[in-house]
Amino acid sequence: MPTRRAESSQESRQLLIEAAAALFAERGYKQTTVADIADRAGISRSSIPWHFGSKDGLLMAVIERAAEELRAALPPGKPGRGTREFFTDVAEILRTTSASALLAILIDAINPDSPIHQRYREFHERARAVVADWARTLPHRPGGLSPEDVAVVVVAASIGFQAQWQLAPDQVDITQAFSSLAQLIEGGPGRSAPETSR
Amino acid sequence: MPTRRAESSQESRQLLIEAAAALFAERGYKQTTVADIADRAGISRSSIPWHFGSKDGLLMAVIERAAEELRAALPPGKPGRGTREFFTDVAEILRTTSASALLAILIDAINPDSPIHQRYREFHERARAVVADWARTLPHRPGGLSPEDVAVVVVAASIGFQAQWQLAPDQVDITQAFSSLAQLIEGGPGRSAPETSR
Repeated sequence: MPTRRAESSQESRQLLIEAAAALFAERGYKQTTVADIADRAGISRSSIPWHFGSKDGLLMAVIERAAEELRAALPPGKPGRGTREFFTDVAEILRTTSASALLAILIDAINPDSPIHQRYREFHERARAVVADWARTLPHRPGGLSPEDVAVVVVAASIGFQAQWQLAPDQVDITQAFSSLAQLIEGGPGRSAPETSR
Repeated sequence: MPTRRAESSQESRQLLIEAAAALFAERGYKQTTVADIADRAGISRSSIPWHFGSKDGLLMAVIERAAEELRAALPPGKPGRGTREFFTDVAEILRTTSASALLAILIDAINPDSPIHQRYREFHERARAVVADWARTLPHRPGGLSPEDVAVVVVAASIGFQAQWQLAPDQVDITQAFSSLAQLIEGGPGRSAPETSR
């Protein structure tokens, strides 16, 4: 049973992760300072080393949380879930602050000298592995693709739907976009979607 | 017939655009100064206002060049080109420095207060319009999707393929990724790719 002190520490940790995700999403990783994060969270600046070691540590926690949310969208007990059910959950994840933070961090992470490069690579690898595991359970392999090929396409579309939607939320509907992707994965050429029957 | 002076001015302009694209790709838009760009191009710093007005003007030129490259991939006289031919050209564009610069700039552009926000929105709109025009010429509408829905998916995949490839060029092959997307657009479930016949 957690003590009051432990509960409070856990709360501080959550507040700091949320503040970090929001600031990374707004300003990017480089432009955000540890002091900014502490101030936004309303937590003493001195507590960040205690919880996370450094700004990099906070970043790892933000990535970890987004990865957890992605894993939660595909519980091990439900491997055979339909395309639309899976994609609806992924679309929900992309609407979160964690996901916006991940997109903002991406550019910093591309540089091989970046301290977050390796961790971000691992995050993409894990995301592709989760999607490939799901693709393996599909009754039909779309277009004759391997589960790994499907994973690269679905992860790419997720990144690009989020980018287009964040840039122009009035023009790109992320839920509609995932519905299109589902139709591509489920349906072939000349097989019309049941547009008028529902 | 251009004078020697005009040729030289045109050369300076090209050198500055190339230097700006390279630096935006390496460092992002905010972290790059006008002085950095002039130094990289080996051109006097005082010539940038003459050519472009400001760093924003240079950015517009970089976006414009990438947009030109995209338009060139779909010449008006060849609307009925096959999916693979079109995608091969798009994959080539994504390997260029201009495209890397566009990805690096994206995060800055998402903020509605950013001076480049509107211009980047227009770039995405134009990219979707080019892809939708191409999708209208397909003999079969994949999955019963509208040309506009196909465009959101193809633009998203392009952004996401580039992001995954730049982060992990040893793990994600951008040409293979576009081949997968082509198979999804051309082929339906259970229709295997002719893997062994070629």
